[in-house]
Order: sequence, then structure tokens, then C-alpha cells
Amino acid sequence: MRIAVDAMGGDNAPQAIVEGIMLAQKNYPSIEFQLYGKESEIRKYVTNDTNIKIIHTDEKINSDDEPVKAIRRKKAASMVLAAKAVKDGEADAIFSAGNTGALLAAGLFIIGRIKNIERPGLMTTMPVMGNPDGGFDFIDMGANADNKPEHILQYAILASYYAKNVRQIENPTVGLLNNGSEATKGSELTKASYELLAAEKSLNFIGNVEARDLLTGAADVIVTDGFTGNAVLKSTEGTAMALMDVLKASILGAGLKGKLGAVLLKDALRGMKKELDYSSHGGAVLFGLKAPVIKTHGSTGPEAVSYTIRQIHDMLESHVIDDLVAYFEEKASDKED
Amino acid sequence: MRIAVDAMGGDNAPQAIVEGIMLAQKNYPSIEFQLYGKESEIRKYVTNDTNIKIIHTDEKINSDDEPVKAIRRKKAASMVLAAKAVKDGEADAIFSAGNTGALLAAGLFIIGRIKNIERPGLMTTMPVMGNPDGGFDFIDMGANADNKPEHILQYAILASYYAKNVRQIENPTVGLLNNGSEATKGSELTKASYELLAAEKSLNFIGNVEARDLLTGAADVIVTDGFTGNAVLKSTEGTAMALMDVLKASILGAGLKGKLGAVLLKDALRGMKKELDYSSHGGAVLFGLKAPVIKTHGSTGPEAVSYTIRQIHDMLESHVIDDLVAYFEEKASDKED
Repeated sequence: MRIAVDAMGGDNAPQAIVEGIMLAQKNYPSIEFQLYGKESEIRKYVTNDTNIKIIHTDEKINSDDEPVKAIRRKKAASMVLAAKAVKDGEADAIFSAGNTGALLAAGLFIIGRIKNIERPGLMTTMPVMGNPDGGFDFIDMGANADNKPEHILQYAILASYYAKNVRQIENPTVGLLNNGSEATKGSELTKASYELLAAEKSLNFIGNVEARDLLTGAADVIVTDGFTGNAVLKSTEGTAMALMDVLKASILGAGLKGKLGAVLLKDALRGMKKELDYSSHGGAVLFGLKAPVIKTHGSTGPEAVSYTIRQIHDMLESHVIDDLVAYFEEKASDKED
Repeated sequence: MRIAVDAMGGDNAPQAIVEGIMLAQKNYPSIEFQLYGKESEIRKYVTNDTNIKIIHTDEKINSDDEPVKAIRRKKAASMVLAAKAVKDGEADAIFSAGNTGALLAAGLFIIGRIKNIERPGLMTTMPVMGNPDGGFDFIDMGANADNKPEHILQYAILASYYAKNVRQIENPTVGLLNNGSEATKGSELTKASYELLAAEKSLNFIGNVEARDLLTGAADVIVTDGFTGNAVLKSTEGTAMALMDVLKASILGAGLKGKLGAVLLKDALRGMKKELDYSSHGGAVLFGLKAPVIKTHGSTGPEAVSYTIRQIHDMLESHVIDDLVAYFEEKASDKED
């Protein structure tokens, strides 16, 4: 198992990235980590170089680079070299905390789509409140701005395979994000998607789910188009941030400005942050490509990096992508028959 | 000024509705309230019958009635009679806390659209965190499942008139809900909408706004299609509810199960609820119709009812709908020239 790591991507790179790899190495000593980036900087944080390969390059993609242009012009950027290693069969997966758009472009143009997958989607395992082991796979979080019903069906299949193979959920339930729970509800897109999902026998489709029920664990997999997914994800984040600020003002404003208030606030905020934190499930998967392409937040710390390595390990070990390749190959030949 | 009230709509009807009207009456003694519903039940809560007319009917629309069918078949329902009074010029506006879909249908089919308005939208003034006087007008919250760019432009004009005339905001800013803040971002729908909004000189269009920035007051008016609006609103609600539960567990779980914990929790939750409560701005307007059609939550209490009456009063006094009728009339004749 060989993982190509963009060591220069993210706000705290390469330190947070390399420290995270060192943490992961303890659990997975047999994984070969290929670290792409400035060798002298990377080496500072390598405490054990067993199975660590450093591939030096001075070039890197910045967070404000225009994604497609960056991928095409910065041919020696750490992210580009890491993606090429996957394409060339020198690595089995890629991980980056860098420019999301650039990683999507590198995944699409360098690594390539699984045959018969039309539009890869961005999937993340989101938290379920009050259930630390729970979570639901949410796809598409925003890789696409416009999706068709056929894409939504493919997302449901991709995420179901993930829930089954990687998260070990037997017969995972699939819900369609919609504007009402009744079967007749929806936009043209969701109505047509509903029909496709209901007709696909390999799925455990349970119908429509409303956005207000996501965090309470309405289904193991929630599918939606990338525009809606992006809006829902960002409004969840925005509401959580705004409410934490309100809580702060409310506790401190209630005359509890002293030590007690500070302690309570810290506990309450820690509780909330912990519930909302889904980094233990790993990063976001650009799903539908020929290899695992995983992205984490730019601000990712070492621990979250190590969770992402566990996720990649589990994806590779479960052969989820090989299974999906076979599924979509067969699906297409069924149609031709 | 005459307001037709569906006294039988909502979970606590007619008590909460009539008590709310009694509260409103104190501030607006000259408004004539026409209360549609069961006279014997309504009369129990009428403490001052000046300018109160009760129009008795035994029929009412239930919350689980199929909206369009209910409007067509229950011709003597309190909501239908109230809408007919507006259509016939016997009332100037209608208010209901009943079945939302039925009120939308009654608005569309009985009261009717403003000429040249294609798809009325549902608009509400949402709260801005940390700014009790702040708020933004959010349209379409979900009256439509599919919208075209032309509808989004009309929503921007409707809500800008509202922000200006009813909320007294000079030159209100308008933001388009989108998946990124850059002008080039978006779906086919939002890109085309962006162009129309930017070209409309009467608007103070400030560009794209992301869902995570809504509650911090990114613009005075936020426009979006009804499907996305519904999803964002419900995920905001869902996140807030889930976090309040987490907060509860967190404070009580921190060993503060005694009186102190309860007091703290009460204060913190009260602070959060207060920030999230936007009932002081009134109810949701089905906007684009020939008269104010206002809906509040089924669980609305008397105070919220009275805020809604203030909102209707302000809408009628400001002649915002007459101005909009004139605007869309002129707009259409401009096109014909």
C-alpha cells in the first residue's frame, strides 16, 4: 500500500502534514508514504524514515491559484506530481489539504474517472448528534454546480458501497435530500431522481429526507446535487458558528464573567465542537475516480491527517474502488445486452 | 384598514389567534378585524368587540388536508372565506396560521398574482445574530420547487421594495445565494440570475453570498430559488435544534445537574432562542399577490400574532403592494415600447 501525499498543501504544511504521517505510521508501519514537496522542510518533521520516501520539488499550488490553470501550468507542483504518481501506478491513493478546486481538477484530469461514471462527487461522512459512532455519507457536497438524475443515482451507489465496505454498515439506508418527505414532493430534478433511486434494486432507498433531519441520522447515505449539498453544508457550518458566538455572549452576559463562566463556556463549547467534529471519519473523498483522492480542510492538524490515512487504508484494503469499477463496467454491459 | 383573519388556522386556534388580535387591537384600534370561523368558540376570547366582525362558518381546512383539493372542495372553510373577502374587496389583507400549502393555493387561485409577476415567492425576515434590530429578507423560502432566473430577479425587486417601504432600509443591499462569492461561480440558474440582477439598475446588488454568511447579515435581501431556500432554512433550523440538545447534554453532563446547571442552561437556551426568534418581524409573506397574504407557524402564540398584525399594518400603510403593481405594470409597458 503506497499513499502519495501532497506535503505542501494546507495552512500548516508541511509541518502538520508530516507530523500526521508520523502518527499514522505507528498504526500502519507497512504503508509506504511518498511525500511530495520541499525536501529540506519536510525532513525537519520526519522522526522515523522507515517506508518514507521524499520526492523533492520546489513548486506548489497556492490556495488562491485558479484550479485548472494551476494544474496545467504548475507541472512540477507537489500536488500534480502526487496525482501523476497515482496515474502512473506508483501510488495507490492521493491525499492533500491544499486547494480543493485544484485537487478536484487533478483528480479528474490526471487520475481520471471510473468508466461510466459521469460526474464524480465530493463525499464526506458527517456527524450524527448525540451518537459519536454514528455518521452519514453526504454526496455531492459541491464538486458540481449542476447535476442530472443519473448523477444522483450514481452518487447513491458510490456512497452505499462506501458505507458498506469502509464503514461496515450492512445494507445502508439511502435518503434523497428533498423539500418534503412525501414521495410526490420535489423539484424536477429530485422527482426524476426519486424514480431512479426507487427502481434501483441494489439500493436500500428509504425515500425523501428533509434538511432539518440530517444531523439526527435520518439515513446512512444522503444524496443530493452539488449546489444544494454545498448550500446545506455551509448553512450548517454558519449556523453552528453563529450559535457558538451567541452561547458565548449568553453565558458571559449572564453575570458569569468570572472563573465559573469561563469553565462552563469552555466545557459547553468543547461539547458542541466535539459533536460537530467529523474529522475522525477522515476527509472528503472525490468519489468516482480510479483511485482514492482525499481532501481535508486547509487548517487540518496532525491528528486529523492520521484519521485520513486510516480512511485511505480502509478504502484500499476493502477494495471499494475495484468493486465499483466492476459494478459500473457490468452495469454498462447489461445495458448493451 | 380591514384584515381578514382565518381564526381557525393553527395548533392553538382559535384561542391564540383571537388573543393575538385582542393584543393588536390595543395598538391599532382603527383596524377592522374580520374573524372567520366558529362564532361560539371565537367569541370566548373576544374581550373588546370594537371593530371586530365575526363571520361564522363551521368548515375549516386541516393541517393534513391536500392543499389544492381543500381549497376547491371546502368552499366554506374559514381560510377560503377570508381569501374571498380580499378578492371581493371586502378586506385588504389575509392572515392565517393554518395549512401553508392551502394558503399558498388560496393566495394564487383566489386572490391572484400581481400582473406580470410569474411566480410569487415566500419571503420571511430572518434574524441576524448579535443584532436584535437586524434582519434580512429571504425569498423564495419554498413556495416553488423550480425557479427561472426571471423569477429570481422578480424576488429581488419584491423584497427590495419590502425592505425599503416596510423595514425602512434606505437602498437595501441584495445578495444572491450562491456556492461561492466570486462573480463567476454558480449553477446555470445562479449564473444567469447574477447577470439579470447585475443589469437591473434599480437594485443595490452586491453579488453572491454563501449560505454560511447569511446569519451574520451579509445583505438586507437574499434571493434564491425555492428549493435551495427551503433546504437552507430547514438545515438552519435543524442545526440550531440539534445544537441546543447538545448544549443541554453538555451542561448537565459537566456535573452541573443541580440548581446551578438548570439556571445556566435556562439562560443559555433563552439567549439562543431569542437570537433565533424572528417572530417580531412578523410572518412569512406570500409575495407577488394582489394583497398581503401572511402565514405564521402553526404553533404561533398571541404575541407573534400581534407582531404579524403590525407587519400587515405596515405593509398596507406603506402601499408597498400598490407600488409593486405600478412597477411591474410600467416594466411591462417599457418592454412593449
